[in-house]
Amino acid sequence: MTLRVGIVGATGYTALEVARLLLAHPEAELVAATSRAEDGKSIAEIHPSLAGRCDVPIETLDPAALAKKCDVVMSCLPHGASAETCKQLIEHGVRVVDFSADFRLSSQATYEKWYGVQHPWPERIGKTVYGLPEFFADQIRDADLVANPGCYPTSAILPLSPLIAKQMIEANDIIVDSKSGVSGAGRSAKIGTLYCEVNESIAAYGVGSHRHQPEMADLVHRIGGQEISLVFTPHLTPMDRGILSTIYVRPRGGTAKQVMECWREQYADCPFVTPVDHLPATKHVAGTNHVQMTARDAGDRIVLVCAIDNLTKGASGAAIQNMNVMFGLPQTTGL
Amino acid sequence: MTLRVGIVGATGYTALEVARLLLAHPEAELVAATSRAEDGKSIAEIHPSLAGRCDVPIETLDPAALAKKCDVVMSCLPHGASAETCKQLIEHGVRVVDFSADFRLSSQATYEKWYGVQHPWPERIGKTVYGLPEFFADQIRDADLVANPGCYPTSAILPLSPLIAKQMIEANDIIVDSKSGVSGAGRSAKIGTLYCEVNESIAAYGVGSHRHQPEMADLVHRIGGQEISLVFTPHLTPMDRGILSTIYVRPRGGTAKQVMECWREQYADCPFVTPVDHLPATKHVAGTNHVQMTARDAGDRIVLVCAIDNLTKGASGAAIQNMNVMFGLPQTTGL
Amino acid sequence: MTLRVGIVGATGYTALEVARLLLAHPEAELVAATSRAEDGKSIAEIHPSLAGRCDVPIETLDPAALAKKCDVVMSCLPHGASAETCKQLIEHGVRVVDFSADFRLSSQATYEKWYGVQHPWPERIGKTVYGLPEFFADQIRDADLVANPGCYPTSAILPLSPLIAKQMIEANDIIVDSKSGVSGAGRSAKIGTLYCEVNESIAAYGVGSHRHQPEMADLVHRIGGQEISLVFTPHLTPMDRGILSTIYVRPRGGTAKQVMECWREQYADCPFVTPVDHLPATKHVAGTNHVQMTARDAGDRIVLVCAIDNLTKGASGAAIQNMNVMFGLPQTTGL
Amino acid sequence: MTLRVGIVGATGYTALEVARLLLAHPEAELVAATSRAEDGKSIAEIHPSLAGRCDVPIETLDPAALAKKCDVVMSCLPHGASAETCKQLIEHGVRVVDFSADFRLSSQATYEKWYGVQHPWPERIGKTVYGLPEFFADQIRDADLVANPGCYPTSAILPLSPLIAKQMIEANDIIVDSKSGVSGAGRSAKIGTLYCEVNESIAAYGVGSHRHQPEMADLVHRIGGQEISLVFTPHLTPMDRGILSTIYVRPRGGTAKQVMECWREQYADCPFVTPVDHLPATKHVAGTNHVQMTARDAGDRIVLVCAIDNLTKGASGAAIQNMNVMFGLPQTTGL
Repeated sequence: MTLRVGIVGATGYTALEVARLLLAHPEAELVAATSRAEDGKSIAEIHPSLAGRCDVPIETLDPAALAKKCDVVMSCLPHGASAETCKQLIEHGVRVVDFSADFRLSSQATYEKWYGVQHPWPERIGKTVYGLPEFFADQIRDADLVANPGCYPTSAILPLSPLIAKQMIEANDIIVDSKSGVSGAGRSAKIGTLYCEVNESIAAYGVGSHRHQPEMADLVHRIGGQEISLVFTPHLTPMDRGILSTIYVRPRGGTAKQVMECWREQYADCPFVTPVDHLPATKHVAGTNHVQMTARDAGDRIVLVCAIDNLTKGASGAAIQNMNVMFGLPQTTGL
Repeated sequence: MTLRVGIVGATGYTALEVARLLLAHPEAELVAATSRAEDGKSIAEIHPSLAGRCDVPIETLDPAALAKKCDVVMSCLPHGASAETCKQLIEHGVRVVDFSADFRLSSQATYEKWYGVQHPWPERIGKTVYGLPEFFADQIRDADLVANPGCYPTSAILPLSPLIAKQMIEANDIIVDSKSGVSGAGRSAKIGTLYCEVNESIAAYGVGSHRHQPEMADLVHRIGGQEISLVFTPHLTPMDRGILSTIYVRPRGGTAKQVMECWREQYADCPFVTPVDHLPATKHVAGTNHVQMTARDAGDRIVLVCAIDNLTKGASGAAIQNMNVMFGLPQTTGL
Repeated sequence: MTLRVGIVGATGYTALEVARLLLAHPEAELVAATSRAEDGKSIAEIHPSLAGRCDVPIETLDPAALAKKCDVVMSCLPHGASAETCKQLIEHGVRVVDFSADFRLSSQATYEKWYGVQHPWPERIGKTVYGLPEFFADQIRDADLVANPGCYPTSAILPLSPLIAKQMIEANDIIVDSKSGVSGAGRSAKIGTLYCEVNESIAAYGVGSHRHQPEMADLVHRIGGQEISLVFTPHLTPMDRGILSTIYVRPRGGTAKQVMECWREQYADCPFVTPVDHLPATKHVAGTNHVQMTARDAGDRIVLVCAIDNLTKGASGAAIQNMNVMFGLPQTTGL
Repeated sequence: MTLRVGIVGATGYTALEVARLLLAHPEAELVAATSRAEDGKSIAEIHPSLAGRCDVPIETLDPAALAKKCDVVMSCLPHGASAETCKQLIEHGVRVVDFSADFRLSSQATYEKWYGVQHPWPERIGKTVYGLPEFFADQIRDADLVANPGCYPTSAILPLSPLIAKQMIEANDIIVDSKSGVSGAGRSAKIGTLYCEVNESIAAYGVGSHRHQPEMADLVHRIGGQEISLVFTPHLTPMDRGILSTIYVRPRGGTAKQVMECWREQYADCPFVTPVDHLPATKHVAGTNHVQMTARDAGDRIVLVCAIDNLTKGASGAAIQNMNVMFGLPQTTGL
């Protein structure tokens, strides 16, 4: 039996990455794709790298029809719009992985404060599993709706959560300095992400105000059992893909070596998370669902370095991993 | 009168940048260049961008002869070798700007600990001016030897020193997360800086152990009058040029707005240092001697962001600026 | 006396390059800049690299007022719109360098066929000097209006024209394969020039249909005295700046060596054109007004390779060079 | 049954690409890797992207032992050395895919002229199948030794051969202007491929003298049945991967439309070759074994544009495709 997969919002980079990964997936297949703007084209006309490899037509979203055609739908819509659509799809009986931030946070108030919109389906806030199978596989297995994690949060939650859970670091003195490839900024026509604006240049943005900061804090709290506070600074880096998070923590007595041991124990059975001795570069994980992380002593701090691919483990790869768990496949199938 | 400039160690990127800047300098001219390895070629054979623009021959270094031909020599040799050569050049009566780290630190012990060599001219340690005209123009004016600053230190000392001097921030809770273009790694044939190794990738290196960390601490102490401790992490970024330093400090009551005011006052007469309201990108200063910096409130921290060009203000532009001061020209001449 | 320079259409990359070059020009100064869209801002708000270096306000274009303030105006408007504006400015008595294609071609019919618009000032077609001082300095000197050359044409006309003039190559068997940096595509928000679309990728565009093809043919004819036909293919290359044109010609008996000799003679007095023995890379001329070119024998063809910076010699540097000629300055002033 | 694969010469980019592709291959597994220089390390120490995914140890080559462990060996050695090793491996009974040029050409004299070495196993010249399954699948099926194609030749042979076979174009008027990513230059420490030398720059190299030119001519002749002559110019392009070949041919009466039809017929059963209507970019095939090509009329020429990934279809992907054919698997398995 082959899983039938649909994509809602098919024009962006995460949708293309889902399509690319499904081409190599032995048990799943892209069967439908929707986009209001591109109705009538084929997906290969929007994404020419699919020419000769995938010819799913782009349709306007009809939740009932889509639910009938698919076993699972990947919703790649923007926040707000996505919750609305997820609700309809689930009411029509299809399971959904939501790429937006709509169901990631525990609190409606936090969501509405940071996202500036009224939540269209508040009943599901705090009652939707966060799609990090490294911690929540049991709940993902039976979920009708999975909140696919944010890219930056994945690169911070994985290294931080076990250290907070074991009380190895101070909970209120955490700095996350992240560097992301440009695909994280999406595929809409804006001057700020033109090639000549960001090439040969690095810059911080959203200092102290990025929406992934409360997501990191919320999840580390949920997993580690302790409230934390952190400062988060994202940077736009001149590369297509990848996130490197350099995280400064204050140890409660331990060393980098003990951090590595804690991680090795925590992630022993997680096929995608690898504590490494070298300093990971984003290139080491580019195009894969893998996570490499290491720790170094530095004065009175420990520096954690975590590398992921923002489009794969930070988005579409994680979604496939979640889909695998939802349908009883090994996590690594097709990844 | 045109200043006659010589370069020792002419094959690297800083030497090329000196040559490039001198082509536009109305009062100085490159008259000599040395390199053991390339003796007999012209400088344009080593650096094809100089073809048709500069045809100085490459010679083997003869300190006496070079001193006679030049008013000032830029020493672009590696540490250790540079001190040795600077000594000989100065004994032959020519003024020198040293690009190496040999005369930057206050203490011989610190130098020998971090650089792992015995210093060839210890008498000048602690008695050589640090080439940051924003603070030391008076001493640079009459110096026979100027210690040209390190690239990363320039991007940290300029934002931090006035805040330490005014006791606006905690001296022992400073994190400097820096991102540098690849030219900072020099022009020798190494696998680690091949295009396909570093392109489309970002990585930390030298975590907690980079030699620019004691230089930052030393100079902020000298300028600000207070010992500091800091954690410094450099990153190799896929771009030719530029350094962005994201600096996390803990304010003693003040805000980002007050940081900006402090800087505006401090640097009012400094033509190359500009506090800006936008978040500076390295592209905004690429190829120039300019520094852009800003501050943002973020939780219990203030985040300082400083952008320079590592080859210009971080090396060769600073050297020209120093040369201008040494010979009574306006700092901005040719820059 | 300092020349007062105005820019019309100040938001694009060529306008920024004019501003950048004027900062280093000892005899000229940017005094005015216009843009319908950005009226009320300063130029440094549009182009943050000018922060602290240039604070000319952006105004809405008023031809009479602008003509009064300036000795020369650089028109960076799109074709059609530019001719209209040039006409008004010249009627108000100011000299103009036009960056658009409006006055480059010899024939109104050719213009209207390739550009698909009616020409707003046809009287000046065929009666406006083409701004290539290497061939037309005498006419540029007294011109009220100079048609600044297209970027690709500059990289083809310079190598080809002397060979056609001396009848060294077949006039009807010429292939121009050009590779351009992305800044050539301008600074408007389009999906096609987003970073993630063009980074790590090269592609041809406008095969057989690019508007610079008739410009090349027209100018080589005007300079070389012989009609030619050519095939031109431009490529979008993942870099900010630069054009490399690889040109395949069929020799009439001669060799690459004789091509080099012909060029050396032709360009002996041209400070920006350098025949070189090495194979030029765009990096060798990046950010400069220089042209490097070489020739190689290859079977029954000779391969010409010519490198320029598309924004400098291909646009704004050429404009400054033209301005220098118009006002009796040495061509190299400020370049 | 899982195929056991060995790699000889495991430190380069093609070896890493073989390892990467085998990780996703359902019927084959990397079981051995050799390198004189890195004996004793694991392959993940040489290629950190394999950390946690592949831990094959690097050994010194022992042909007898390797032949016993493997069903097929990929020889990634330089020319000359590779032929020597292939001979030994085959004598020990293992089948080999040779990445070098040693067995690609039909004539020993041509080989020795272009490669400047005496061939170590001349008996197999002209008697080794060329590993392009699009034309030679029948011979590959039973081969003990397959000459894996060069990267540039693949991008020229595929579009040209059917046109020559059908006599649609002139055989003596062909220009191949190719642009390659930097990985094509290999992974040895050389100044010429340092990041800062090739980034933000494009340049031609080996004009009229590149060794892939006789390979293209030889294979088009073998496949198309007609001798051809061509001019070939490769360019180093600032990107990791990809080759775009822009090919100028002179039609014998036909049009681009007929070229497309010819290709569609020729490649109807070839899963990796796709004639496309859009102008292909290297990004459209990056990281895949796919080939996209199109044709355009341009004056008296037709312009063919072909995009491949130089490391995949241009090297390691083709090798896996050949391996699939050799062992009776569908060509697309694992690709």
